[in-house]
Amino acid sequence: MRNPIRLKIIIIAFTTITMMALFSSCVGKGNQPPADAVPEIRALLDRQVEAWNRQDLEGFMAGYWNSPDLTFFSGGTTIAGWKSTLDRYHQRYQSNGAEMGQLDFSDLRIETLGPASAFVRGRWHLKLTAGEAGGLFTLTLRKFDEGWRIIHDHTSSP
Amino acid sequence: MRNPIRLKIIIIAFTTITMMALFSSCVGKGNQPPADAVPEIRALLDRQVEAWNRQDLEGFMAGYWNSPDLTFFSGGTTIAGWKSTLDRYHQRYQSNGAEMGQLDFSDLRIETLGPASAFVRGRWHLKLTAGEAGGLFTLTLRKFDEGWRIIHDHTSSP
Repeated sequence: MRNPIRLKIIIIAFTTITMMALFSSCVGKGNQPPADAVPEIRALLDRQVEAWNRQDLEGFMAGYWNSPDLTFFSGGTTIAGWKSTLDRYHQRYQSNGAEMGQLDFSDLRIETLGPASAFVRGRWHLKLTAGEAGGLFTLTLRKFDEGWRIIHDHTSSP
Repeated sequence: MRNPIRLKIIIIAFTTITMMALFSSCVGKGNQPPADAVPEIRALLDRQVEAWNRQDLEGFMAGYWNSPDLTFFSGGTTIAGWKSTLDRYHQRYQSNGAEMGQLDFSDLRIETLGPASAFVRGRWHLKLTAGEAGGLFTLTLRKFDEGWRIIHDHTSSP
């Protein structure tokens, strides 16, 4: 017969190691956002700027959550849903002689809020033939299976 | 001498129960926001409105993160830090014959983003002697040891 004390020590050691591993991986998953969140969101914003600057409004809109629950606040106006947000951009920048101009973002601060959520503070600037436009924005993002998407956009101008 | 098989069974059973309990509480903590997050944030906003309406600007500001890292976006202007945000409110609503008026919030949507983060979309409205003022706001909140606090406020008017 084997030594029961030795067996007990082996069982306890194995269990302790398993528990520690499980617990630490679980705590890590729960409270710490993935390390690649910030560069992934940065890449999404870069793709939006590139799309805008080649007049590709649908490409720009790919950064937004394609859902009726997307919300867009501009000045005192609220817009609900992906389609209505696209329509607003289309009406404002691609109709009646309007132009999209050249977009850039500055003062970007991307901050994670949980394992699958983040928010972005920044400044937008449009260079137009007839002058300049610009303002501030706050984006709220969630990570979906297909990647990070803006679920709420609040923009304002001076 | 005691039965080593029985001892092993006791150790294994105890360990399994402990692991399951630890793991389930950990998973719960990590991915699900606390159930009381929404009512707690709602109470914070209610306290802000009550403070404002008794002209208590410091009481109103208690809902904000008391940190130099608090940010406040209004129209095209960014303000950094709790003290500067208080100064802006003071200058805008309590000096040179300005009045605070009667504040109320409407269309509030409080949504959690993680175990200790949330955002709020809403509309603010001020009833003043000389008319009305109002607009939209987006708040980003984090839960600290002392409770939920607004870490970023973006407000805009028509």
